[in-house]
Amino acid sequence: MCRWIAYSGTPVALSQILFQPEHSLIDQSLHSRKGVETTNGDGFGVGWYTQDTATPAVVRDVSPAWNNRNLEEIAHHVRSGLFFAHIRASTGTAVQQTNCHPFRKGRWMWMHNGMIREFHRLRRDLALAVEPALYPDIEGSTDSELMFFLALTFGLTEDPPGAVARMAGLVEKTGHAHDVRYPLQMTVAVADGERTWAFRYSSEGRSRSLYFSTHVDALRTLHPDAAFLRSVSDETRLVVSEPLGSLSGAWNEVPENSYGVIQPGRDALHDFRPALQGDSSRN
Amino acid sequence: MCRWIAYSGTPVALSQILFQPEHSLIDQSLHSRKGVETTNGDGFGVGWYTQDTATPAVVRDVSPAWNNRNLEEIAHHVRSGLFFAHIRASTGTAVQQTNCHPFRKGRWMWMHNGMIREFHRLRRDLALAVEPALYPDIEGSTDSELMFFLALTFGLTEDPPGAVARMAGLVEKTGHAHDVRYPLQMTVAVADGERTWAFRYSSEGRSRSLYFSTHVDALRTLHPDAAFLRSVSDETRLVVSEPLGSLSGAWNEVPENSYGVIQPGRDALHDFRPALQGDSSRN
Amino acid sequence: MCRWIAYSGTPVALSQILFQPEHSLIDQSLHSRKGVETTNGDGFGVGWYTQDTATPAVVRDVSPAWNNRNLEEIAHHVRSGLFFAHIRASTGTAVQQTNCHPFRKGRWMWMHNGMIREFHRLRRDLALAVEPALYPDIEGSTDSELMFFLALTFGLTEDPPGAVARMAGLVEKTGHAHDVRYPLQMTVAVADGERTWAFRYSSEGRSRSLYFSTHVDALRTLHPDAAFLRSVSDETRLVVSEPLGSLSGAWNEVPENSYGVIQPGRDALHDFRPALQGDSSRN
Amino acid sequence: MCRWIAYSGTPVALSQILFQPEHSLIDQSLHSRKGVETTNGDGFGVGWYTQDTATPAVVRDVSPAWNNRNLEEIAHHVRSGLFFAHIRASTGTAVQQTNCHPFRKGRWMWMHNGMIREFHRLRRDLALAVEPALYPDIEGSTDSELMFFLALTFGLTEDPPGAVARMAGLVEKTGHAHDVRYPLQMTVAVADGERTWAFRYSSEGRSRSLYFSTHVDALRTLHPDAAFLRSVSDETRLVVSEPLGSLSGAWNEVPENSYGVIQPGRDALHDFRPALQGDSSRN
Repeated sequence: MCRWIAYSGTPVALSQILFQPEHSLIDQSLHSRKGVETTNGDGFGVGWYTQDTATPAVVRDVSPAWNNRNLEEIAHHVRSGLFFAHIRASTGTAVQQTNCHPFRKGRWMWMHNGMIREFHRLRRDLALAVEPALYPDIEGSTDSELMFFLALTFGLTEDPPGAVARMAGLVEKTGHAHDVRYPLQMTVAVADGERTWAFRYSSEGRSRSLYFSTHVDALRTLHPDAAFLRSVSDETRLVVSEPLGSLSGAWNEVPENSYGVIQPGRDALHDFRPALQGDSSRN
Repeated sequence: MCRWIAYSGTPVALSQILFQPEHSLIDQSLHSRKGVETTNGDGFGVGWYTQDTATPAVVRDVSPAWNNRNLEEIAHHVRSGLFFAHIRASTGTAVQQTNCHPFRKGRWMWMHNGMIREFHRLRRDLALAVEPALYPDIEGSTDSELMFFLALTFGLTEDPPGAVARMAGLVEKTGHAHDVRYPLQMTVAVADGERTWAFRYSSEGRSRSLYFSTHVDALRTLHPDAAFLRSVSDETRLVVSEPLGSLSGAWNEVPENSYGVIQPGRDALHDFRPALQGDSSRN
Repeated sequence: MCRWIAYSGTPVALSQILFQPEHSLIDQSLHSRKGVETTNGDGFGVGWYTQDTATPAVVRDVSPAWNNRNLEEIAHHVRSGLFFAHIRASTGTAVQQTNCHPFRKGRWMWMHNGMIREFHRLRRDLALAVEPALYPDIEGSTDSELMFFLALTFGLTEDPPGAVARMAGLVEKTGHAHDVRYPLQMTVAVADGERTWAFRYSSEGRSRSLYFSTHVDALRTLHPDAAFLRSVSDETRLVVSEPLGSLSGAWNEVPENSYGVIQPGRDALHDFRPALQGDSSRN
Repeated sequence: MCRWIAYSGTPVALSQILFQPEHSLIDQSLHSRKGVETTNGDGFGVGWYTQDTATPAVVRDVSPAWNNRNLEEIAHHVRSGLFFAHIRASTGTAVQQTNCHPFRKGRWMWMHNGMIREFHRLRRDLALAVEPALYPDIEGSTDSELMFFLALTFGLTEDPPGAVARMAGLVEKTGHAHDVRYPLQMTVAVADGERTWAFRYSSEGRSRSLYFSTHVDALRTLHPDAAFLRSVSDETRLVVSEPLGSLSGAWNEVPENSYGVIQPGRDALHDFRPALQGDSSRN
């Protein structure tokens, strides 16, 4: 089980979100309040978009986030208006850089908290479903990376919600074929540099926690003295696996089996349910 | 704050002590029951004596013990009759191999749980007290390594209890000169391949926990079915910062301000108090 | 391109082979004489059999062998009568522990120098040929690990030379189907704790170098003063990618397209050629 | 022996300097043309100034530069107008992050190629000369870091050339007191975010190589088609331990026992000779 943050809005130093808030992600790497595992010390990653480059930067390391000086250096000296951060607690696969999130393909980034249950038994069937041209780029051994490659196979860059639905549908179907009752447990964030999609879903309807931040405008009214709120635009938004900071009213739970879109203009929240490829009922 | 184990007795695979017991040291690296920090993820080390080599082997790494495969490999494939294991939670100094325990000099190994308070301010004065011929071998930046070098300076290889007492005396004196009220908090293990000394001391008289195992003979009577007890000699002994396993009656607290000697023949337990070099009252 | 050593014979400290000889494997990690890449700094591994455990120990790390202190500690303090050592120069895949050699399955160890050409394009087809029950255990992304899993699929534990031939046959066939002219370049060592097999083969008939040591009896006559030779049994044998040490007459090149067996009793050298599964002409 | 680059001028992606040129610093990490050691694989570091932060960012790692993906990510996504990069070949001290260059104190960065000869014997005397208030911040065990702290002790932030001269004078004096004939061999770069100083000096007058780039204006006349030259300002300047790229006329050797200043306006080149503290002949 892992923890993650997706930030979108006024460019800030990564450290303002990752290190400074009370109960920050870095604190969570040592002590999680809502997680099953109380320590997320099996590696971390940050990915950020810049104005100068076509692809986001992704820095990942197998050491715990709380004692990694390079993460601290980067977080204090890099500013970005759209970034991901992830801390990992391995559910069995190797602790190696290629198993750390976020994963990247071109302009797209992906990170995940959760698991494919009995992944060991399902892995081969799922890998075979990956588009052959994409297959060679799989570098690690996690369910999370494979979910990303399945979503890419199913059209992530054209239709993110549809592709994630089809990925989830395939995992459900493959799991059931192997007698796995509840194959999928996930909160997923995916971004293309402009928009961020965040999904909350599990086969059993008891998904890992996921929160999005209250509209900045409303929060400023609640907390007129909060300096950070005055420094960022109305469109600034956070999606997090666990609430940060201590501002009351700042967090709203993403409902079960739904997804949100953080984008220029009005954000959106929709139902989510797995789909089968070729199933036209959804998209 | 850290955790450590010192084993002495019938040669066993390191894993029998480090991995197999309930609440093993590796479990403690993720979740400590008695520690202030609940995670000891800032590196680990094992040191073991062999019959073939003059010096003990010391393997140390900055990664958390719980996810280090090489530690698991070594623990399952190496057997020893006298070994140390240590898991680290940094109190501020860098997470680097040269700051991991145990430290070694010739046949001697040293490991520590605790701290020199306000070490940042005392460090230079203490370093100056190290024998000039030894000074260049200091590789890390911890209080623990410096305590080892001070003990070596004060005659560790000739008179371990006396040298540790003089080290503690210097730390107390130097601390008081810098207005540090309680300069020293320590449990220390030191071995020469034949004997192991374990010290429990703190300036304030509230030392970190330390336990030694009950005589195997007595334990066998209490637990006639425990396979491990039947496989080891009467002289087998463990000293640990936190109890392992689930055998009732297995552990005895080392009293405040005292030290024990694990050795061939009868073990011993003595009072410990800091001494000043040249102070003849003690030794 | 990589370098490797397989030792079989009188138990010795690993360091006697890995560190002490002139032009030792550790020297080769910094400067290779015969290799295409002049530095093998992308990780290393050692694997050794012990008398106490069913499986060999395998210790692997992504750091260069020449500056890894833990390797030095292990090499000086561990003795074994059958061990592998490997230093890696990545030909493109990630530098991660699961891509380091040797690979292990039960009592079997495998290491490789060479490459599957255009592996990126062939990878999926080859992965699909792996026995489904074995597939989930693939942890890394190298051609070398996949070759091991293919050999396991084709009966490595029953008939090592036949299984390696069938693996090579599949690589050739798959390569040709993708218009790769010379798909395979390899020297491979595989062991089960009793015997070691060493293969030298390439599609183009210009394989990476491979040497086996001269019979100890004959070497002693040539070099009556060599202390090491007097300390080991007649059956002691080394297979290496590049000669070590400075003893004239010590090394014999393994012929192109052949394999040797190091075993109790008389060693053997045979022709090697790829086979297709179901092709009964070979086995 | 190490390699380093100091860049000053028009903000560019670090990769344009570190990765793209022929014979780039990253190439040099695998194969050095002028170095004694042919591989610089014992860690690396980059440090860069930004407009948003008071202190430079410093990212350092013990892995070889040529296979470190995070370095590649940072180099491609971070832009800076003043940055340092360093690749390390240890001359004996531990391969650890705190021994990697550049070193930082406030706004100041320092990196070094060379050595204090017989450092093991001189280390204690030199460490005692460090200002007691600075001593506790020493984290590693290298001569290079100690030289930085000595220069800070002797007024680096007020008078860089004078402080470096006094540092060199102390090293010479201390070396001679220990019968070291040629105590110091160095090329050093130091920066404060506005200016960069580069020193070339050795006791024996045979210093490691050091080059500065030809004025961009003159280079453009020589190479009217070089795109990079057209994209940077006239004031852009590089100081390097070995020439990069393939532009003829691009590099000028820094003379023996001299130092240069890269600064807004006219750069400068001066003689350098060690000084003793309190010796007023120089400053």
